[in-house]
Amino acid sequence: MATRNDLANAIRALAMDAVQKANSGHPGMPMGMAEIGLSLWGNHMRFNPTNPQWADRDRFILSNGHGSMLQYALLHLTGYDVTLDDLKNFRQFHSKTPGHPEVHYTPGVETTTGPLGQGITNAVGFALAEKLLARDFNKPGLDIVDHHTYVFLGDGCLMEGISHEACALAGTWGLGKLIAFWDDNGISIDGHVEGWFTDDTPKRFEAYNWHVISVDGHDVDALDAAIVAAKAVTDKPTLICCKTIIGKGSPNKAASHDCHGAPLGDAEIAATRAAIGWNHGPFEIPADVYAGWDKKESGARLESDWDALFAKYAAAYPVEAAEFKRRMSNELPANWQDVVQAAVSDANTKAETIASRKASQNALNAYAPQVPELLGGSADLTGSNLTNWKGCVSLKREGNELIGNHISYGVREFGMSAIMNGVVLHGGFRPYGATFLMFCEYALNALRMASLMKTNNLFVYTHDSIGLGEDGPTHQPVEQLQTLRCIPNHHVWRPCDTVESMVAWAHAIEQKATPSSLIFSRQNLMFMARDEATIANIKKGGYVLKDVANPAVILIATGSEVELAVKAAEALAAEGVAARVVSMPSTNVFDAQDAAYKAAVLPRGVARLAIEAATSDFWRKYVGLEGDVIGMDTFGESAPAGQLFKHFGFTVENVVAKAKAIIA
Amino acid sequence: MATRNDLANAIRALAMDAVQKANSGHPGMPMGMAEIGLSLWGNHMRFNPTNPQWADRDRFILSNGHGSMLQYALLHLTGYDVTLDDLKNFRQFHSKTPGHPEVHYTPGVETTTGPLGQGITNAVGFALAEKLLARDFNKPGLDIVDHHTYVFLGDGCLMEGISHEACALAGTWGLGKLIAFWDDNGISIDGHVEGWFTDDTPKRFEAYNWHVISVDGHDVDALDAAIVAAKAVTDKPTLICCKTIIGKGSPNKAASHDCHGAPLGDAEIAATRAAIGWNHGPFEIPADVYAGWDKKESGARLESDWDALFAKYAAAYPVEAAEFKRRMSNELPANWQDVVQAAVSDANTKAETIASRKASQNALNAYAPQVPELLGGSADLTGSNLTNWKGCVSLKREGNELIGNHISYGVREFGMSAIMNGVVLHGGFRPYGATFLMFCEYALNALRMASLMKTNNLFVYTHDSIGLGEDGPTHQPVEQLQTLRCIPNHHVWRPCDTVESMVAWAHAIEQKATPSSLIFSRQNLMFMARDEATIANIKKGGYVLKDVANPAVILIATGSEVELAVKAAEALAAEGVAARVVSMPSTNVFDAQDAAYKAAVLPRGVARLAIEAATSDFWRKYVGLEGDVIGMDTFGESAPAGQLFKHFGFTVENVVAKAKAIIA
Repeated sequence: MATRNDLANAIRALAMDAVQKANSGHPGMPMGMAEIGLSLWGNHMRFNPTNPQWADRDRFILSNGHGSMLQYALLHLTGYDVTLDDLKNFRQFHSKTPGHPEVHYTPGVETTTGPLGQGITNAVGFALAEKLLARDFNKPGLDIVDHHTYVFLGDGCLMEGISHEACALAGTWGLGKLIAFWDDNGISIDGHVEGWFTDDTPKRFEAYNWHVISVDGHDVDALDAAIVAAKAVTDKPTLICCKTIIGKGSPNKAASHDCHGAPLGDAEIAATRAAIGWNHGPFEIPADVYAGWDKKESGARLESDWDALFAKYAAAYPVEAAEFKRRMSNELPANWQDVVQAAVSDANTKAETIASRKASQNALNAYAPQVPELLGGSADLTGSNLTNWKGCVSLKREGNELIGNHISYGVREFGMSAIMNGVVLHGGFRPYGATFLMFCEYALNALRMASLMKTNNLFVYTHDSIGLGEDGPTHQPVEQLQTLRCIPNHHVWRPCDTVESMVAWAHAIEQKATPSSLIFSRQNLMFMARDEATIANIKKGGYVLKDVANPAVILIATGSEVELAVKAAEALAAEGVAARVVSMPSTNVFDAQDAAYKAAVLPRGVARLAIEAATSDFWRKYVGLEGDVIGMDTFGESAPAGQLFKHFGFTVENVVAKAKAIIA
Repeated sequence: MATRNDLANAIRALAMDAVQKANSGHPGMPMGMAEIGLSLWGNHMRFNPTNPQWADRDRFILSNGHGSMLQYALLHLTGYDVTLDDLKNFRQFHSKTPGHPEVHYTPGVETTTGPLGQGITNAVGFALAEKLLARDFNKPGLDIVDHHTYVFLGDGCLMEGISHEACALAGTWGLGKLIAFWDDNGISIDGHVEGWFTDDTPKRFEAYNWHVISVDGHDVDALDAAIVAAKAVTDKPTLICCKTIIGKGSPNKAASHDCHGAPLGDAEIAATRAAIGWNHGPFEIPADVYAGWDKKESGARLESDWDALFAKYAAAYPVEAAEFKRRMSNELPANWQDVVQAAVSDANTKAETIASRKASQNALNAYAPQVPELLGGSADLTGSNLTNWKGCVSLKREGNELIGNHISYGVREFGMSAIMNGVVLHGGFRPYGATFLMFCEYALNALRMASLMKTNNLFVYTHDSIGLGEDGPTHQPVEQLQTLRCIPNHHVWRPCDTVESMVAWAHAIEQKATPSSLIFSRQNLMFMARDEATIANIKKGGYVLKDVANPAVILIATGSEVELAVKAAEALAAEGVAARVVSMPSTNVFDAQDAAYKAAVLPRGVARLAIEAATSDFWRKYVGLEGDVIGMDTFGESAPAGQLFKHFGFTVENVVAKAKAIIA
């Protein structure tokens, strides 16, 4: 029978061998965390390798994602569909084993990690989702949601600011089922960390109201005891500080950053094999080691026990069981299309001229009661973002319970966004979260990660331009719309009125594999009258809002500038210039329409003028070199909004002049 | 004589009145921090209102910048050139009193704040600059650099992740002259913070190795004692936790978020005047209150004492004194142009085909010894970014001293960047700092703030495309080049070889009021032969690298794609198609050239094909709707770089085909 050392050394060997074969990768972390992997995956974690989608599995997140070979080795050894050939293809094109763990690529990988600090933040989201889903669905004696979230993290994650945001919230929320393992190896890429990382980390986490345990990260018994102790504390997350040696086993490179991010080399691998007593060839795992690791049978048993529990639940609570399945499978309620139709029609009838942030709140009032998986929030701007709705309840902690469905995340934009990524990946919730558009910049990489991971989060941004006025250039977006629009697989909506806002929210909610950023104004926007056919075109992202026969010029605008385009078109008409107005609330969605539709909206040969209070360069893709753009290519100023729009050329006179110039 | 209450209430009155007149702003914080302002500015801080540029002044930073009226009131009352009329113009167009404090707008404002968490981080940079400048210039008995950095911050700053990054480093570096005042009022915009902000903040800061003091923030004696105690601890920064009441003085709105971000209203202002015993009209300050606040005379005395000290210093150390003045006035050494010419010529002669990150290191080796104000660093990627150079010394702490000029910032991209902003605003240093290009996203708002503040920092980003290979899409930039290029007042350089890298660094170093992002490859880039005239054109941002008579098509490329463009031009020539190659290392700098030069490089009527392994939309501004772009509009993949370039269409065959298609 394989010994514990054999089991741990199998991880070391696979990590060394795969990195060497790829000639690229990070062997040090897997070799240093091998015993931690053994304790958690071998002795505690509940999962079924043959069904990585089992709803009640424990979640595992590798926040120090560069150590991906640790996770791939664990997946392979315990019986997931990750073969030796997959390990031999480590970091190769379209393999199951990319450089960093990527969700949807590899069975058993819950989230994509690599950008440091976001994995632990995702993990907070997973644990939050578990806690809220358990609250919403469990019944006495029928805990169908009851699992832990485990996360490995390194010094890098702890240095990143986002770890502060996430871990503070985890403590505040009392996420007792979140258990983090800190790989305390004292090494980061620049070397021994004492020159730049001197935090008293246990004390820091105690300050966040965490339960903190310190152990020798190579002592499996100690690790086992720590995990038991962690699970016993149910009102605080636990940080297990694991003192480890990076690259442990390597006679000449252990405890040094030399083994962090490069292959050990054939000679050192041979020396390591000898030193740890691993007498097997590259990628060779003895049968007894496989047997010692195999979790297929025990995993199947865990799941079938749960299946039996769920069957009891479904018998007693058939409606709730169906709803649980619906929400975990990311399906909208059956009546969804009716809800949307009624809401859009209602907005059209009311014909309100209001701020689009208020129109967004109207959309939430229409949709949220019908879509209980919506989990709202704001980074301490609830009353400004208007993300609360009539039936929502602010999240608060009572004892060890969390009440509510609208989260005050505090001033933590990046944390909020990456927590939302974790929540949506867990399943059962559709998180939306808001801040001012400017501060999407604090969170940008989390938005990118959402797009890369094909999640369908809803990012809400208000105060979308110089229209916010007096707060000044630090708060006035200019280049942010363009930045968001250029993230692959990301929909950006900037509606011009109540009806477009209602459609935009519906479109975003309907996405399965694309996150959306919904952008709203602080100031009032004029309601636009439309016929049914025009309303139906809104969801195509761009459409003809006001038309004329044989237009000489097309005015393209979004959001607050649509009203200006409409007024300018009227002024142009008075001067005998026929101008079409195209409203383009989502360039991303418009770009995805077929060529015929796009050509019908923007026929070749007609001069085009784009108008948007944001970076002008972006619009060249629609107006070309012959057209023109009225945009913002400087920072704004602190002053009342009306004065700013005038100063920066967002006037009927300027639109008219520019339109006439390009058709001259 | 005015009492302390009168002095503090003057702040309250001015804040209420100015916010009311502007009908916009944040009265709560100035009213809550009035006594803290009085203690620090009245009794401790060393400054001269008539010369806000005095080199050895204490620096003051309002990290909770929404409370700008506190700072404007203090500047007005102590005697800076901020008049009552300026206060009456609070938040109006082109006033000296914008919504948030903005450097260069208002005398006495050291940095622009508002985006939370960055002010405290700037302050860490100011304090670091002071400590390093003192080390480099002070002589026994002649401490010409000897001042404190004071910073006010609120709950929001403490929730933001960047506060973790900055404050951890401040503790590690032992910045004893940094003194922070936490406005602990228990209120943020969403209400009472206990639902989302439950950190034990004193414990957290002790974990960072800070000196922590807790006081009643309305007790001036206690505050005075705390400041004295803070100054006495010279090897740790100090956090003074000040328990305060937001909006103190307002009978009905104090201690509530109602007074945070909106005018109190005339009735409540009247009630407040009565409650605090302030019997003066709006914007009326009695003479005795002015007299109690006035610092013009004492400030002039402080500066003239320092002038005398500096005269002694200059007599004993004339070379150092001249160098100090040069560095504080942001002038380059007199021989700078010769240094650049020699370095560019040397790079051209050596004709090396190396990674541009290595070419960047060569540039540092050429320039850094001549420009001692360069203060290098990397967010834990020194060996990958190659920001170290032959003569540089890694920063380390010995006792209470900091040795070195290259900083390992740890994995703290945002912290690094905002600290650099503080360092450069302090004066005496030109900071450069690096990470992978992808992780500019973690720091983006600090880059924007640098551009807004017109600082001349140097941001260095390596691993600039899918060319980084196996680390995969989490680390492969796609849209980041475009994101950076669209920040107003920001130069982005992506050089194609050693000579362009040398010129790019020189151009960036020469800027006085524009930050630059210097973007380099992981992989080798082919050296390009050029004549002298061509070399001279590089600094224009875009230029004709390879020309032909009567080009039928222009290939525009940057960085690693220039080699591909050159090879494709050769292939096109073999097929009888005349192609010009334009290298465009900096679109921002090219855009600023005169129209004639731009038209000469990109003549109208010649088809254009842009090639860059990044978002294609951006290039439409150069190629129009008739041209084409070979770019990246999806995420990358984990695989060897060569395979990825081929997969995504960066091949001679594809360039040739696309070029022929647009001229067909």
